[in-house]
This record gives sequence, C-alpha cells and structure tokens, in this order.
Amino acid sequence: MNFPFESVGFWLWRRAQLTPNRVALSVPVGEDSRHEFTYAELDERTARLAGALTASGIAAGDRVAMLLSNGNEYIEALFACARIGAIAVPLSFRLAAAELEFMMEDSGSTALIYGQEWSSLVGTLRERTGVKAIFVVGSGPDPSYEDALREAELLTEPRACAVDDVLAIFYTSGTTGVPKGAMLTHGNFFWTNLNLVFSFGYYQDERTLVVLPMFHVGGWNANLLATMLSGGTVVLERSFDPERAFRIISAEHITSIMGVPTIYQMLADHSDWAATDLSSVRGALCGGAPLPVPLIRRYQERGIRFIQGYGLTEAAPNCLILPPEDSVRKAGAAGRPYFYADVRVVDEAGTDADEGEIIVGGPGVMKGYWNRPDATAETLRGGWLHTGDIGRIDDEGYITIVDRVKDMYISGGENVYPAEVEKVLAGHPAVVEAAVIGIPDERWGESGRAIVVLRNGAEADANEIQAFCAERLAKFKVPASVVFTDTLPRNPTGKLLKTQLRERFGGAR
Amino acid sequence: MNFPFESVGFWLWRRAQLTPNRVALSVPVGEDSRHEFTYAELDERTARLAGALTASGIAAGDRVAMLLSNGNEYIEALFACARIGAIAVPLSFRLAAAELEFMMEDSGSTALIYGQEWSSLVGTLRERTGVKAIFVVGSGPDPSYEDALREAELLTEPRACAVDDVLAIFYTSGTTGVPKGAMLTHGNFFWTNLNLVFSFGYYQDERTLVVLPMFHVGGWNANLLATMLSGGTVVLERSFDPERAFRIISAEHITSIMGVPTIYQMLADHSDWAATDLSSVRGALCGGAPLPVPLIRRYQERGIRFIQGYGLTEAAPNCLILPPEDSVRKAGAAGRPYFYADVRVVDEAGTDADEGEIIVGGPGVMKGYWNRPDATAETLRGGWLHTGDIGRIDDEGYITIVDRVKDMYISGGENVYPAEVEKVLAGHPAVVEAAVIGIPDERWGESGRAIVVLRNGAEADANEIQAFCAERLAKFKVPASVVFTDTLPRNPTGKLLKTQLRERFGGAR
Repeated sequence: MNFPFESVGFWLWRRAQLTPNRVALSVPVGEDSRHEFTYAELDERTARLAGALTASGIAAGDRVAMLLSNGNEYIEALFACARIGAIAVPLSFRLAAAELEFMMEDSGSTALIYGQEWSSLVGTLRERTGVKAIFVVGSGPDPSYEDALREAELLTEPRACAVDDVLAIFYTSGTTGVPKGAMLTHGNFFWTNLNLVFSFGYYQDERTLVVLPMFHVGGWNANLLATMLSGGTVVLERSFDPERAFRIISAEHITSIMGVPTIYQMLADHSDWAATDLSSVRGALCGGAPLPVPLIRRYQERGIRFIQGYGLTEAAPNCLILPPEDSVRKAGAAGRPYFYADVRVVDEAGTDADEGEIIVGGPGVMKGYWNRPDATAETLRGGWLHTGDIGRIDDEGYITIVDRVKDMYISGGENVYPAEVEKVLAGHPAVVEAAVIGIPDERWGESGRAIVVLRNGAEADANEIQAFCAERLAKFKVPASVVFTDTLPRNPTGKLLKTQLRERFGGAR
Repeated sequence: MNFPFESVGFWLWRRAQLTPNRVALSVPVGEDSRHEFTYAELDERTARLAGALTASGIAAGDRVAMLLSNGNEYIEALFACARIGAIAVPLSFRLAAAELEFMMEDSGSTALIYGQEWSSLVGTLRERTGVKAIFVVGSGPDPSYEDALREAELLTEPRACAVDDVLAIFYTSGTTGVPKGAMLTHGNFFWTNLNLVFSFGYYQDERTLVVLPMFHVGGWNANLLATMLSGGTVVLERSFDPERAFRIISAEHITSIMGVPTIYQMLADHSDWAATDLSSVRGALCGGAPLPVPLIRRYQERGIRFIQGYGLTEAAPNCLILPPEDSVRKAGAAGRPYFYADVRVVDEAGTDADEGEIIVGGPGVMKGYWNRPDATAETLRGGWLHTGDIGRIDDEGYITIVDRVKDMYISGGENVYPAEVEKVLAGHPAVVEAAVIGIPDERWGESGRAIVVLRNGAEADANEIQAFCAERLAKFKVPASVVFTDTLPRNPTGKLLKTQLRERFGGAR
C-alpha cells in the first residue's frame, strides 16, 4: 500500500478487496428490470477496460473521450482512466456534433468510448487523426465495448497517480463563446468528495439515486463517488423520469438523492407524490439554484432533509453547502464553505467585502484550463479561482448569489453562456445583431430569449431562427423564445446594456 | 488555505470558522452539571494555549508532556501542540511516579501540563532539567493553566505541519520491560480518522460519549477526533461510571459510544439498563477484545449496533473493523482491514498465510519509536509494522486473533507486559525468580497472576509482594493474585515455558 492515498484508482480497487460482494451499482435494463454489480465485478470490469485501453496503446496522460449515457460503463471508464493514469474527457450528449468535434480536437483525445444511442453524434469524430481506440457500448460500426472487455487482459494493480495528476477534463463554455477544458486532478476529486463525506455522513448502507447526467462533474462528485468511498450502493438512472424515480425510490429503498430544483418540483407536483413510500430517503442534495421554502417544507413533511450547495466545474464542483437545519432559516442563500473549500467575497481590489466577486481556494480548485495558459492565468489569478459570480456574505458567513459577473443563465441545471449563442445568431444571413438573456421559466428555472434585429428588408421568423441555432448548438442552448426589435441598447462604447434588455424583454413567457 | 490538509491543527481552526456556534464539547463540572464549549470557544482557548507555550519558549518539535484527566484542557493541549508543531506526550495517570519520570526523561519533554488531582505523581518531574513551562489545571504550586490562557496572546493561524511531522508520542511498554515512545504523525491521525469516518458515517448531529482515558491513542482516534472532523459534539466523562453513563446517554441524547467489553458488560448488567432511554444511540464502538454474542444481542435488541475493532498504539490505532452486520456472523473475529489500513497474516518467511503474525501497512503506521532506531528497525522491518499478534484469516478476509507472539495480556483495556512486572518481582529480596501470566477475569477480561519462587528460608506473602509491585508499577500492572511454587518450568536453554505455567496456574481466581 504505497499509494498517494488520494489516487482515485485506489477507491474501487480497495473497496473490491474489502467488500467484494457488496452491491456497488444498480443499472436499469430495459423498462422494468435492473442489473446489479458487486464491487468485485465492477473492479474486474474496470481492470479489463484498463487492459483493453493499454493494449490499444493508451497510456498515462492520454485523453480518453466519453460520449455515454449514465451506466456502469461510465464508471468503469473513469476508474479505468484513473487506474492507468489516463485522462477522462466526458462529453455532453446534449451538444451538437460541431461542438463535440471541437472538444475532441482541443483535448487531443486518442480514444473514444460511446454509446450506440449517440452514434449519430459521433459522425466524423472517429476519423480524427491520432485516434487509437474506439469502443461502442451496444452495437455499431466500431469494436464492441463488451468484446473488448472479454478479450482484454486484466490490469489489476492501479497506477499510483500523484495528487496533482489530471484525472479528467470537463468542458465548460465561457463568456468568450469558446469552450474550455477544466483539468481536474486526482486530488481535486479526493478532497471534494471528503467535503461531502464530512457534511453528509455517508455509510455503507447508503443507497444513492443518481439521475443527473454524468458528463457533468456534479454527476460524480455530488453523491456518486462519495457513496462508493463509503462502500454504499449507487442506483443509476439513464435520465430523470418522475414516475420511474418514484418506483425506484420505494423499490430500491433509496436513502439519498441528488438533483436540481426542477426535479424536486416535478416530483412534489406529481400525482404519485402522496402515495409513494419515501420513508427510506434521509437526505436530498440540491444544486443549481436555491430551493423555494414551500418546496423545502413539503419535503420536510415527508422526513426528507435538503442539503443545498453551490459549485462550479472549475472547483470540482463543491464550494458552498447549506445544511438542512439552515434550509428554511437561510432560504435563498447558497450556503457556507465546505470544510476543505476556502470561499471569499472580495471587492475589485481583492479585499474581503460584504458584497463582491466570489473567489475559491483549496484542494478542490482545478489545475487550470487544458492548453489555455492565458485563460488559466486570468481565472486563477493570485492563486484564487474567480467564479464570476457576485455574492453577498452575511455575519454568519453564509453567502447568497446576487448576480453574475459572467453573462450566463442556468436552464434545467445547464449553464448557458449568451455569448456563445449570440455568436451563432450573428451568423444568420438575416440578422444584423442579436442578444440573448435568461428569463424566468417555471419548469427550467430559466430559459433563453433571443432579441433579434433583422436586416432591412430581410425576413425570418422565430422558428427559422431557432432551427438555425439547433443545427449548431446543443438543444438546451437554443433560445426558447425569439423577439424582434429595431435596435439594441448599447452604452457609448458600444457595450450591450443587458440590464435594459432584461427590463424590456425579460418577462416570463 | 495553503495547508497540507492533513495538518491536525487545521481541523479545529476550520471548524471554528465554519460552525463557530455549534457545541464542540461538553465536560462535567462537579457531580451534576456540565459546561459546553462551542467550536469558537475551544479554538480560542487553543490559540491562547499555543500563545502561552510559545511565550514560554516551546517551539516546533519540542515535547509537551501531559498528565491530565479527560477534559477540555486535554483537547486544547493536543490542538495547541498541533498548532505550533510541537509534540504532545500524553502520560498515563495510572503509572507510578518512577515510570512517569522515565517517560519525561526519555522524551526530553520541556513542558508539562498536569491536573491538580495528579500532583502527587508529578513529584520530581517539575525539577527535571530543561523544563521551560509547567502549568497546573486547578491549583497547585505551579503557574495556573487558566491564568496562562487569560494572559496569553492568541496564536490564531495554525502552523502548516507536514504529513510526516510528529504530532504525539504515546508510550507503550514492551516485552523487554522498557517503555518505548511510538511517534504518531499528523498524517497518522488524519488517515486513521478517515478510516473511522468511512466506516461509521459521522455527521454534524453526532453526539459522542467518551469515557476512555485520553492518554491512550484510542481515546482520540476512535470517535473523539472523527466526531470533531464532522462538526459533531463530544461529550466527555472523566472516567467510566455506569450510573452516570446512563444518565448522560439519555439526557445528552448520545448517538455513539466508544468502550471496551468490560464497560458494555457492566452497562448491560446494571439495574438501570432496562429503564434507561437508549433510543438515541445508533452505534457503539468496541475495542480491546471481541464481544460475546449474548451481549451483542442484548444491545441489538435495544437498537444499538456494535462496530468492533482491533488496533495498536503503533498503528494509531485502527487496523481491523468488524462491522455491525458481521458482529454475530463473525463473532470472535477481530475484523477485516479498514479502508486505509493494509493488514496481512504472514508466516515466518513473510509470505501470506492462513495463520501467522499480523503485520500492518498504510498511512496509519507510526513513524517509529522515539530515539530507538534499533527497536524501530526491528518492529518496522520490511516496511511493515509487526504486531506480535498471531492471527488466522478466513476466506472472506476476516482475521481472528489466536495468540500473541509478544508476551502480553489485556486487563480492562490496558496492555500489561509480564516482562516488565517480572523485572520488578526479581528485585524483591525474598524472590529467586518469578513469572507473570494473564488469567481469565470476569470483570476485567484478564488479570495478572504472579508465580513466585522464594529464596530458601525467606518469607513473603501475597500482600507483601503486591505492595512491593504497587510502589514501582501502575496499579493495573500489579498482579491480582500471587501463587508460590518451588521451581519454574524452563526449556533446556533456560527459557520460561509459559504454556506449562498457564496449564498449571492459569485457572480463574
């Protein structure tokens, strides 16, 4: 046992040694049945995948792209990367093919593991230069994932990765409209999971329902891996469906859930809410946005405590936590820092202030952006992660998000950067200029609205504008509504005045 | 936040930042009342003590001896050492003055913090050369601890100690009869507490009752510090008294307890057992020896799960854990390894075997014995801690202790090394030779029996032999019974045949 004990490859390997026969994972098979993997089984499959990747020429430091639905293969792929020191690059299946191509190219991924349901997105990805290994989960024109595992030699012993070695690159869009890959290290994963463990108290009887997509870092580091550190069981769903969720919670005796406000609202508003046995659930983690008090109370009445949090990809992601006993008393707040997360509110001079930008330090903060030294230096200036969010800190140290320095809105848990959408809109032949804002949306929290100025004499309706975007952007980035106007308000230097746009066009649909 | 995050000084300081007003500690005041310290209060007192020690010339690496009953001062003293990088030397008040003098001298302690109730033991300790600082908790001839705190300047920021820096020296006796100081590092404390956290699932509502003396490493690293990592409350008792324990469990809504089999037996046999509300208790940790099944069942009937363990000072101490679901199925076993403890059973060639010596690796293993390079090299040979215990490992990886390579027995949770007692007995003018064995004892698990051969014509009775020992040894080491015989069985090379002695003299009293 000569590890840096923060090595992520150690976790699953060690659990398999200690509790080989405990169930690590339950995944859906078809509509109504499920398959369980013990820690020993999951570890063996991981060792096989690590062997298959190695046999294909993938080595420490190489990037392995993943375009997968939630499933055991995703967990195997991440742990196989950890085991050989390779770098996982989880890609969002909500993105458009052009976006995925950019990420594959930018990361220099030489391996791709994808699910057959995403074949249409794979497109030309497989022909990229330098790709050495490509496996399809299910059937398709590429080598089968299961065949590869069957034929592989087991790579039993995990590589001793250093705390500072990169384990994964998660892409985030940005205010410049160009996605950047946040490099998260083994240490980032370790310490951010410890934050959860110290705050939530996981134990080996934990049964955690995971419905959020695993291409987000929150899919891993809010509940999933913490549960596996403690030897509990992860119950995976491909995606969120309220009826299925209710069935699973009672049939699988779920003890903890992770979700976003939209999900919790949909559950509470569902006709099965009252009749479903929720008594096994002790805690519900929630990220993305603060929960409204009436919703918190409805869950409390059912014995379910909310643990709310605030984070961002670049912080792996856990920064702030609002513990259950504060969910009503401090409603609307994002929370106070986790044990191993240093979070400050500073003014423009970098001095602690009651209101200002939220900056983050500590062992969860990313190593930097992949191949982007300038963006890294800017975002991590002075050794602090600059979140771009404006917060207010109260006398008990609780931070509330009041605004964003970054122009961004969150729709159904997904960050949308208007700059990225505006760039696409500007490419439409009929458009002179366009702005995008987030507007309140009952179901998704926020949704996008494009404010478009058409060229003199040109014609285009909302449908056409949306279709144009849909060809080039992930669906969740396509503005849910489009309004037309004559001119956009700008300040004397030409900067768009989004505040005025929001006042004029920001009403809910 | 530029710590090695394993720094123990970080824990309390960070908790005080995050949850300043939560209760960290409850200590008894007189017979019937208690005093509570919030994390902020405990941290401030620690910062003051660190300031007072610094002002007295105590610096990083210096040894600070402690002769204290369980209390807030003990926790303050350990964390103050962690904060300035000094080394805590907790001394057992069960030892005789001569034993304490040896440890004070051997460790080269230049500071001493003691409780007034142990003044008689302090004796000449305060006149040792090099002692720079001495504080008495309560009143006495030395500077008062509380005055020192009041007058001290706060040393707010903890020193960033390295993982490998020594935090404490705990003395253990040995087969040679000379106590050795096991050096435990910040990293040892950190990882061994993580082991508990991953196995038990602490959370911030934890309310942990601590009755075991804190001069043992188990007083710290089985429940106490893990509770404080998670922001829970430690409810300290000076010592174990069943009636008080029952009162406190129900009045303080205790959720977890740490004890030894004797304690759990005394509670279950007590007249208050049936009537006391134990419903808040979810887990009971137990070390020292396996629990009998009937006792396990009696606790299970009350909803209390046992988490049994095996450890030793040199491993800080957690090595093996027997989780609740195995307590009956694997009754008698010591358990399987903790997450961050590598435990093997090996034959004399060092090869894994079904039965053989238990050896331990991983981040909990001590740095070595203080100033004892030979004993360190011997005990840590090949990079493994040789426990001296013989274990048998089953096909599920559970280890049962079957014998000891070291000649040792455990009485009421305290290790007794017969060699140390035999050395004292040999010094009695009437004694030719003597041997000491452990015999079964209903109350204490084991107790000591001296088998003594008197000089021709000399006279001495059991009382006189015991009184002679009591002057030179801790009370728990004094043989509970003395038998006289004509000669001791030895092999041809003169080695005592303890097996024969046990057969002949080993019956219970």
